[in-house]
Amino acid sequence: MPQSPSRGTKAMRSAEKGATLETYLAERRALIDAALERFLPGEGDGPEIIYQAVRYSLFAGGKRLRPILCMAAAEAVGGHGQDFLPCACALEMIHTYSLIHDDLPAMDNDDYRRGMPTNHRVFGEGIAILAGDALLTEAFHLLSSPECTRDNPEKHLQVINLIARAAGTAGMVGGQAMDLQGEGKTLALQAIEDMHRRKTGAMLTVSVSSGAILAGASTKQTAALSRYGQDIGLAFQIADDILNVTGDSDLMGKGTGSDLSRGKTTFPALMGLDASRNRLTELVEEAGAHLAGFDNRAEPLRWIARYIMDRNR
Amino acid sequence: MPQSPSRGTKAMRSAEKGATLETYLAERRALIDAALERFLPGEGDGPEIIYQAVRYSLFAGGKRLRPILCMAAAEAVGGHGQDFLPCACALEMIHTYSLIHDDLPAMDNDDYRRGMPTNHRVFGEGIAILAGDALLTEAFHLLSSPECTRDNPEKHLQVINLIARAAGTAGMVGGQAMDLQGEGKTLALQAIEDMHRRKTGAMLTVSVSSGAILAGASTKQTAALSRYGQDIGLAFQIADDILNVTGDSDLMGKGTGSDLSRGKTTFPALMGLDASRNRLTELVEEAGAHLAGFDNRAEPLRWIARYIMDRNR
Repeated sequence: MPQSPSRGTKAMRSAEKGATLETYLAERRALIDAALERFLPGEGDGPEIIYQAVRYSLFAGGKRLRPILCMAAAEAVGGHGQDFLPCACALEMIHTYSLIHDDLPAMDNDDYRRGMPTNHRVFGEGIAILAGDALLTEAFHLLSSPECTRDNPEKHLQVINLIARAAGTAGMVGGQAMDLQGEGKTLALQAIEDMHRRKTGAMLTVSVSSGAILAGASTKQTAALSRYGQDIGLAFQIADDILNVTGDSDLMGKGTGSDLSRGKTTFPALMGLDASRNRLTELVEEAGAHLAGFDNRAEPLRWIARYIMDRNR
Repeated sequence: MPQSPSRGTKAMRSAEKGATLETYLAERRALIDAALERFLPGEGDGPEIIYQAVRYSLFAGGKRLRPILCMAAAEAVGGHGQDFLPCACALEMIHTYSLIHDDLPAMDNDDYRRGMPTNHRVFGEGIAILAGDALLTEAFHLLSSPECTRDNPEKHLQVINLIARAAGTAGMVGGQAMDLQGEGKTLALQAIEDMHRRKTGAMLTVSVSSGAILAGASTKQTAALSRYGQDIGLAFQIADDILNVTGDSDLMGKGTGSDLSRGKTTFPALMGLDASRNRLTELVEEAGAHLAGFDNRAEPLRWIARYIMDRNR
C-alpha cells in the first residue's frame, strides 16, 4: 500500500506534487485541445488552405498556459473550469496568432518554433499573415457566440473588452512594436520590463482575470488574481530569457542564444544571471502572496507559479 | 427664389439629388472622422510609432462607406444614426486593417493607395503588420466598450459576433486567401463571385445589418437590409473591376489595369465590359427592390446604391 503523502519525506512529497502537476496539466491540455477542435470554424466555410495554416500552428504542441490559467482562476473563486472553455480557447487562439505574426520575416524572422518550421516557412508569408488574422478574428467570434454568452451578456462584454485591451496597442501589439524598435539597442531595465508587461504580461494577466470574472469573482478577488497574473507574466519572461542563455536548444525548439544574436536586450544581459534568478524567485513568491486569501481551490495557480520558475520551454 | 425640386425638370432634379448626396456624404464623413479621432486609443498608452502608423492609414481619405451604411441602415428603421458611431467606426477600423494587410509585399504588393505610399512603404513591413493587428483588435475593444454597450448588451454581443464572422475565415480573411490563391489562374464566374462575396461583400453586408440590429430592426427588416447589403457588395466589386479597366489612374490612386498585370480574374475579363455593366445595373436595381418596404428614411440607402454604380474611386 503506498505511503500517504502527508507521511512521506520532503523529497517524496515534492516528487508527488510534481506528478500531480504533470497529471493536472496533461488533463487540462487534453480538454483544451478537444475544445479547440470543437470551436474551430468547420471546413467548407471558407478556403481549405486557411484552415490548414490555422490548425498547423494551433496544434503544434503549445503548453496551453493561458487557457489553463483561465480555468484555474475560475476554479480558485469557486467556478467550474470547464464552463469557461470558450474563453480559454479564445485566449489560446490570440496567443497562437501572435506567435505566427511574431515569427514573420518582417518581425523576428524565425524559421523554427517548438522544433517545427514556422507557419510562413510552410504556407508562405501571405497565408501566414492571414492565418494570424483569422485566429485573432475567430477568437472574438468565439467570445461573442450566443451559446457561450447567453447566461451573462454583461460579464462576457466586460471580458471581451479586457481581452481586446490586453491584445491591442496598450498591450501585446504595443509590446511587440517596442520589441521591434528596441532591436540593436540596449534598453534600460524599466523599458524592458514595460515592454514585457505589454508583450507577454498583459495577455497572461487577462487570462487569469477573465476566468475569475466569468466565474463571478468579487472585485477584490479579481484584483488579487490580476496581481498574481502580472507577477507570473514577468516571471515567465525572465525564465524565458534565462533559458535562452543556459537552455537546451532542443527543449527551446529554437537555437539557444537567439535573442543575443538578434540584438535583443535580455534580463541576464542587463542584470546578470544570478540577479535574474533572484528576481524570478522574488516574483514567484510575490505571485504566491497574492493568493494568500484563497483556499485550496487556488492550489493549481500556486503550482503554475512554481512551474513557470522550473519549466523548460 | 430657387425653383422647388418637385417642379424642376428631370435633369435639374437629378443634379439636385447629386448635390444632396454629396452634402449628405460630406456631413457623414465629418461626423465619422471626428468620432474616429475620439475613439482611437490615446498616445502615451503604448509606443508612439504604432499610433502614427494607425493614424496614417485611418485618415488617408477613405470614403467611409461602411460606417455611412451602418448609420443609414439604423436610420432606415427609425434609429438615430449618430447613436451608432462606435459600431460605425469599428467597421472602418476593420476595413482599414484589411487594406494595410492586403497591400503588403506578401499579398498584393501595392506601393500606393489613394495616391499615397502604402503603410509598409512608410513604416516598414513589421510595423504595418502590427498597425493592421492593432486596428482589428481596437475595433473589438470599441465594440465592447462599457459606454457603448450598457443599454443593450445582448444586441451588442450579437453584432460583435456577426462582425467577427464577416471579418473571419468564412468572410473577409477567407476571401483574401482565395484571392491570393487565384492569382495567375482563370477562375470561373461562380468562384469569382464567391471570392468577392467573402472578401468585400461580407463586411459591407454586416455594416448594414449591424446598424439595423442596433437600432431595433425586426427580423424581417434585418433580412431585407442584409440582402440589400449583399447586392451592393457585389455591385461595388464589379464597379471597381470596370474602373480598373476604364478608369482614370489618378482617381483610382493606383495604376489602371493593375488587376490584369497581377494576373487577377476580373468581371470584365470574364464576361466583357458590356455584360459587366449590365450585371452592375441589375444588382443596383435588385438592391433598391429590397428597400421597397421602407419609407423615405431609407432614401440615403437608395442614394448609396446609385452612388456605387456611378462612383469614381
